[in-house]
Amino acid sequence: MLSATNKKISSVLLVGGTHGNELTGIHLVKQSQKEMLGENYESFSLDYLIANESAIKANQRYIDVDLNRCFKLADLNDSTLTGKESKLAKSINQKFGPKGNSKTDFIIDLHTSTANMQTNIVITRTDLFHLQLASYLKQVLPDVTVTSEAELMEDHHFLESIAPNGVLIEIGPIPQGCIEYACYEKTQSATRACLDFIELFNIDSLPSFTDTLNTQSYYSKIHFPTDDNDDICASVHPSLIGKAYPKLNKGDPIFKRFDGADILYDGEPTILAFINEAAYYDKKIAMCLCNPINFSLISASKNK
Amino acid sequence: MLSATNKKISSVLLVGGTHGNELTGIHLVKQSQKEMLGENYESFSLDYLIANESAIKANQRYIDVDLNRCFKLADLNDSTLTGKESKLAKSINQKFGPKGNSKTDFIIDLHTSTANMQTNIVITRTDLFHLQLASYLKQVLPDVTVTSEAELMEDHHFLESIAPNGVLIEIGPIPQGCIEYACYEKTQSATRACLDFIELFNIDSLPSFTDTLNTQSYYSKIHFPTDDNDDICASVHPSLIGKAYPKLNKGDPIFKRFDGADILYDGEPTILAFINEAAYYDKKIAMCLCNPINFSLISASKNK
Repeated sequence: MLSATNKKISSVLLVGGTHGNELTGIHLVKQSQKEMLGENYESFSLDYLIANESAIKANQRYIDVDLNRCFKLADLNDSTLTGKESKLAKSINQKFGPKGNSKTDFIIDLHTSTANMQTNIVITRTDLFHLQLASYLKQVLPDVTVTSEAELMEDHHFLESIAPNGVLIEIGPIPQGCIEYACYEKTQSATRACLDFIELFNIDSLPSFTDTLNTQSYYSKIHFPTDDNDDICASVHPSLIGKAYPKLNKGDPIFKRFDGADILYDGEPTILAFINEAAYYDKKIAMCLCNPINFSLISASKNK
Repeated sequence: MLSATNKKISSVLLVGGTHGNELTGIHLVKQSQKEMLGENYESFSLDYLIANESAIKANQRYIDVDLNRCFKLADLNDSTLTGKESKLAKSINQKFGPKGNSKTDFIIDLHTSTANMQTNIVITRTDLFHLQLASYLKQVLPDVTVTSEAELMEDHHFLESIAPNGVLIEIGPIPQGCIEYACYEKTQSATRACLDFIELFNIDSLPSFTDTLNTQSYYSKIHFPTDDNDDICASVHPSLIGKAYPKLNKGDPIFKRFDGADILYDGEPTILAFINEAAYYDKKIAMCLCNPINFSLISASKNK
């Protein structure tokens, strides 16, 4: 019995370079293609995509708009969107989708962060298949945190959403525009674990899982303090720099102003993620807030 | 007696944002201006410059070419150079220079690196004044390394070269596009120590110095290994990541290929700097090589 869905995964797409200055995925996809990684798996075909060549050449996250926000079905069908990434999204959707009737069954999209996100597995669906995938990754990799973004939007804007199944892998900390082997190796391990899971799923040989999957769910973000000129006037507090998903309680220092004064947190207890992510400075976002959410694999199974 | 030169320093310019994605200097200059830092010093006036506003807005090192390579006298006088940064260099030179007959006596230019450069003080002149400045910074700051680039070129291309005296301060490691308070604080300490030195120099109250100044001098660089497509196919070896000025001997691992194999160093013993600097990937430079050079303050004094 195929335990989560009756549909076997026949085609997988491995994507790097959705963000042009996140080098790890780009080089991993090229190396995987060179090594013919797909030949290790019998039950599905593996294809490769370097997503945003123009942004990679410019060593920027994107040229016009963030490509990984361009895959809402509504936007893919909107002929008035003609920016560089909007057009690119449509052509990727034609080649590997189209969303809703996709030739690709599963997409793995590789990302990095300047924040200490460890091995962050982002899922955008919480059916039994994806919950089992996330549980499997937690079983076989030492430092996995699972983030569910399924709740955030129905018509999702991620590249991986053009296939009916997929995952986004985000490893950090690493500066933009840099490669570090430790980060490369973590990305490689997570990629291979995903492919292993798909193979096991296809041949009906998944291991047993615990009943509950612990995830983190984003519910808000905190912006940098600004001055009268709307300039950032404080940094994330040094006590939080480099921390992976720390707890923050009322009264804890959260920012250090450039004049040296501490700013204390005044909200409800929370867990922090994406602390000091370089890509979020343009929106003056200093960190994201999340809460633990536990999914039951038993009830997901019953819900099928 | 003014110990190095008879000319008092009357005007100092503090510069941030010569590179648009190095945020530390930008925010330090703005904060210093807000706090009227110059009012702490009686013997000179302090002016401020955010150098490359367009690059800052784009969160890029530069738009057309690296601004900090545009200040050769030959290039400033070349009317055929009309790129964004070439024109900007000419306007900065007109406003705060001109080079050779400058209204500004001393320029401090603030930079950061993704490499562990600690507090890297870069001088482009090795007269007694600059050797004493570097010695002073070594005396009062815990982690200073002094790099002399005086030997590299006669008509220097750095922004700070438009004044007869100056220094470049480069702190790392920090990702591009990020602020961290520890890096901000180091940059602030180094800036204030430079200004303190100028004040002490002006009022003829410099402390005594050791006779010898230890510096690092660049003599070469090492490029990333590439494959048949001219793509980088290895990362800097994990054993070197995050290290500050490590020694490298023949037979030490220097790169790790993406297929997992180590590449060993096959050259003469050397010291490494700028290991895995993001800004150098466009030229596929993986690290720089330097050697210790000791300057004698006594002979520099005699040479005057």
